[in-house]
Amino acid sequence: MNILDRINKENDIKNIDSEELPRLAEEIREFLVSHVSETGGHLAPNLGCVELTMALHRVLNFPEDKLIWDVGHQSYVHKILTGRKDEMGSLRQFGGMSGFPKTSESPCDAFNTGHSSTSISAALGMACARSIKGTHENIAAVIGDGSFTGGMVYEAMNNMADIKTSCLVVLNDNNMSIDQNVGGMSTYLSKLRVGQQYNDFKGNVEKVLMKIPVAGERLAKGLKKSKDSIKQILVPGMFFEELGVTYIGPIDGHDIETMEATFRKALKLDRPILVHVKTVKGKGYVHAERHPSYFHGVEPFDIRTGHVIKEKKTMSNTGVFARKLIELGRTDDRIVAITAAMGKGTGVSAFAEKFPERAFDVGIAEEHAVTFAAGLAASGLVPVVAIYSSFLQRAYDQILHDVCLQNLHVIFAIDRSGLVGADGDTHQGIFDTAFLSHIPNMTVIAPKNRYELTKAMEWAVGYDGPVAIKYSRGDAYYGLSEYNVPFEKGKSEIIHRGRGLAIMAVGNMVQETEKIYNRYISEDDDVTFVNARFLKPLDTELIDDLSHDHDRIVVIEEGIKRGGYGSAVEEYVEEHGLPVKVMTCAIDDRFVPQGTVSELRRMLGLDADSIYDRIGHADTIQ
Amino acid sequence: MNILDRINKENDIKNIDSEELPRLAEEIREFLVSHVSETGGHLAPNLGCVELTMALHRVLNFPEDKLIWDVGHQSYVHKILTGRKDEMGSLRQFGGMSGFPKTSESPCDAFNTGHSSTSISAALGMACARSIKGTHENIAAVIGDGSFTGGMVYEAMNNMADIKTSCLVVLNDNNMSIDQNVGGMSTYLSKLRVGQQYNDFKGNVEKVLMKIPVAGERLAKGLKKSKDSIKQILVPGMFFEELGVTYIGPIDGHDIETMEATFRKALKLDRPILVHVKTVKGKGYVHAERHPSYFHGVEPFDIRTGHVIKEKKTMSNTGVFARKLIELGRTDDRIVAITAAMGKGTGVSAFAEKFPERAFDVGIAEEHAVTFAAGLAASGLVPVVAIYSSFLQRAYDQILHDVCLQNLHVIFAIDRSGLVGADGDTHQGIFDTAFLSHIPNMTVIAPKNRYELTKAMEWAVGYDGPVAIKYSRGDAYYGLSEYNVPFEKGKSEIIHRGRGLAIMAVGNMVQETEKIYNRYISEDDDVTFVNARFLKPLDTELIDDLSHDHDRIVVIEEGIKRGGYGSAVEEYVEEHGLPVKVMTCAIDDRFVPQGTVSELRRMLGLDADSIYDRIGHADTIQ
Repeated sequence: MNILDRINKENDIKNIDSEELPRLAEEIREFLVSHVSETGGHLAPNLGCVELTMALHRVLNFPEDKLIWDVGHQSYVHKILTGRKDEMGSLRQFGGMSGFPKTSESPCDAFNTGHSSTSISAALGMACARSIKGTHENIAAVIGDGSFTGGMVYEAMNNMADIKTSCLVVLNDNNMSIDQNVGGMSTYLSKLRVGQQYNDFKGNVEKVLMKIPVAGERLAKGLKKSKDSIKQILVPGMFFEELGVTYIGPIDGHDIETMEATFRKALKLDRPILVHVKTVKGKGYVHAERHPSYFHGVEPFDIRTGHVIKEKKTMSNTGVFARKLIELGRTDDRIVAITAAMGKGTGVSAFAEKFPERAFDVGIAEEHAVTFAAGLAASGLVPVVAIYSSFLQRAYDQILHDVCLQNLHVIFAIDRSGLVGADGDTHQGIFDTAFLSHIPNMTVIAPKNRYELTKAMEWAVGYDGPVAIKYSRGDAYYGLSEYNVPFEKGKSEIIHRGRGLAIMAVGNMVQETEKIYNRYISEDDDVTFVNARFLKPLDTELIDDLSHDHDRIVVIEEGIKRGGYGSAVEEYVEEHGLPVKVMTCAIDDRFVPQGTVSELRRMLGLDADSIYDRIGHADTIQ
Repeated sequence: MNILDRINKENDIKNIDSEELPRLAEEIREFLVSHVSETGGHLAPNLGCVELTMALHRVLNFPEDKLIWDVGHQSYVHKILTGRKDEMGSLRQFGGMSGFPKTSESPCDAFNTGHSSTSISAALGMACARSIKGTHENIAAVIGDGSFTGGMVYEAMNNMADIKTSCLVVLNDNNMSIDQNVGGMSTYLSKLRVGQQYNDFKGNVEKVLMKIPVAGERLAKGLKKSKDSIKQILVPGMFFEELGVTYIGPIDGHDIETMEATFRKALKLDRPILVHVKTVKGKGYVHAERHPSYFHGVEPFDIRTGHVIKEKKTMSNTGVFARKLIELGRTDDRIVAITAAMGKGTGVSAFAEKFPERAFDVGIAEEHAVTFAAGLAASGLVPVVAIYSSFLQRAYDQILHDVCLQNLHVIFAIDRSGLVGADGDTHQGIFDTAFLSHIPNMTVIAPKNRYELTKAMEWAVGYDGPVAIKYSRGDAYYGLSEYNVPFEKGKSEIIHRGRGLAIMAVGNMVQETEKIYNRYISEDDDVTFVNARFLKPLDTELIDDLSHDHDRIVVIEEGIKRGGYGSAVEEYVEEHGLPVKVMTCAIDDRFVPQGTVSELRRMLGLDADSIYDRIGHADTIQ
């Protein structure tokens, strides 16, 4: 019998003999590889934290104790150890188990995560709540070194120094973000990693300081040691200690016994404590260890070869963007590109290969990325900031206050706009139109296909002011290549001019709407089909014009309804008393869970059939 | 002749003899006190950085060189030295000189600021742009220690370590935020301040390390020195050095000669460098030195006594909020309060005096503040996060992702919602309805007067889910005290039910609308007057009902139009084809400069007269 078979609910791992734990770790790895090869998912991060998760589960009691996973894509092992082993087959699928912690899924998930660098803040909140309530649960957060470039971590650490109650923060350091890490913190952690292994529990720093005379002697012998190793002999983790955060480490993140002992002691302290744990991303599966970035988040793959089963044949929007950016960069040396730790994901790394001096990866730091871009633009360059839609939410104020208020020429390339699929509610890019369109000076473009994406980029480079270009995850659309209207600020494109009913579709929904349009045409209904293209400014001239010979406008967009494009059309029509009725098919005031895009559209009534039914049933269409 | 009379444009200060500089500093201080006592403004921060600004102006060439002021309220001396001396009389007034840097005001202002912690990011952007363009201007940023609790600073410093070009960052350390500083960074800087004065230019760290044997001896004699002073002997500014940021300091921020020499050398380095300068907030004016927090931003005052001339007679909304919070806190021990370095400004400090264990000042760290609150709420407490509207923009993603996605019971007390007056465009709280209303699970309330503000707070504490309560700067409104409708989720209040025209006013605009309403009533026009109260969810039942006997609905709100409350009403009416026409009086797609609230409302057409004229001229009203 497998040891894993004896793990059926939370805390079962406490009944496993210590000697059996390494074998259990192996079984969990096999289980992970076997399942994720079928479903796809975040493999490498989970392989890296098998022992770490096991050690935490040996020490903590669930669900009383609270464990918060930063970002949360590394919580699979936690799920396996808390009675959700059998749900691994439905991982990241519609109606199935989430790939992230979800309080709605299990009482053992203390806090929902998905975006980076939130865990310490939440854990400190819980620790303070415990003091106020006078309860005694343990509180722990696990955060990767990649998340340590996000400013919230620093805000939380600054606060940590003021807090006088126990809270364990485990820095899970695998020397990687999704891609390679960047910045001073990464370099610093690398130095700590190669420093002396932490073995003893450091109660106070003075013990360590006693080693100074030895260091002094060494110095006297000719400064043989670098300044860094000397600093480490004095106080490892000086950066944290200087900030008032107690630091322990580094310890081996694959040595369960040491971790258990350290965590137990750390939790007994009456202050927050940072334990630095070294892990290997992808550990135990040869392909993932070799290519941890590729196996960070992966599609279903062949276990033996490590090859993804369904290699994409067509080009993604990201690929189209990346190729065009390089082309533009060749002829216009004002163009620079910025990514926030998503070089490969956004395609900026391709530009960086061609123009290393003109590409910047600032780490997981969207706020800084945007204001840094504002600085570049204020000096006359044309920065292209490529960030996923849901992560750009982080920089709302910087877009408004640092870019738009000064009307700076910054181009926002918003990848993963719209539904993203298996990553679920935290990653859906459905708020961008709403949070960008109400910002003065901002221009928002949603290209309908790959040709228009490149056209939009050209236009944005030639424009002078903030421009956001949003495009969806996955395959670029090759259809509808013709332009019926020149690419001009604030102008929509009429794909077909009919009468009675006008359908205005936004960005990636143009492709879906084409099906509806074709169905009407096949039924001899001469409807108008508009590609909105510019979401802001609104093409009011077109709407005025449509109102002359249309009863009805239907707006179709894959985003939140309130504050979206349809809302702007409705507002305009209502205020100007135009003789046309507007209906918007969008996402109505709800978050959207995981699933394939087509499953989600069906659920939301945003697939062609549902929309057709909704329009067709309406009385005003004759 | 005064020396200041010889300063009429940028770079004039370079022609002043070194010996005359202290006298010039004195004259600038007198000039500042004299003017700000008339206009009001940020006095103490400017008094503190007179010599610092002078030293920078001795070293930099304007407008070629770029100087960025973090937050920017300390830029008065910079303005005086760049040809804007004579405009000090119009400081912060409608059409006058801004109290913040404005690129539109002078080519010597390199970047607009207003919110905290953006300057290093912008400066690094400019430095990278310079490398790419191959130009040779100097780039410098000045940032206060208060701003050093904001996460963007850390994101920028992390990036700084990767950047190989000159950039001077001056840490202007006066040991204060607006109020007292909090957190580990503040403690750390305090330690650096009392450490040994920096005198020599430190080329590399090894020189300092040579002192180790001495330190070792001292240690051997019984660890007489604290660990902190030992660390400082080794490497001052270790926190920054560990992060890869070159640190110099601390130096005396009132010693122009030392600063000049240090800045000149620092600018010659081929990497960004942080110079730590110690200043005294309010320096040179006895009342401001004694009460730097009071004189941070001050109304017109009597120079001799230091007393503000027009002491407020009535209670502000902030005061009403603070008093009610304490009352609620007495009977409900789940209530905790959080401020981001604005204890006095938000009234949270009054709560903190009564319930020190249940109040948290997290520093200028809005993102952390919100997720920290989410952690508190996840543990069953009821956190009230009090943040100014324009600063809450910083935490848009945390509100959405950490609070609303989990439907946590966090109450957002949004002070300074609406027009704020003299602080101008960066501080106007005009986007809150738009950026909050499209977030699922969020409830948004705009109370009409002081009674309703307290009622809203009671209701929010009794509710279970995220609630935002927004209220304006300045005097609380005491009028319209009666409730005509019980306080119920999603229900507006009908103040008067008439027919034909319905006016729906939002929050502080109810008071302004009362004038319009009274005018109609005096003209025997029996119009309907509605206090919107709940901006989300929308009171659709009321709108349905109004549509039966009204031709027209006019929405009046002091916020951005797109995505606002009026937009939601229009969307609803349009989608449901209700037989009523909606018009919204709001701020139409523009930023709003400084001025008194009444001046700004007139400019925007949002005063009672303008709105009355707009409605009256409309054809549909008979």
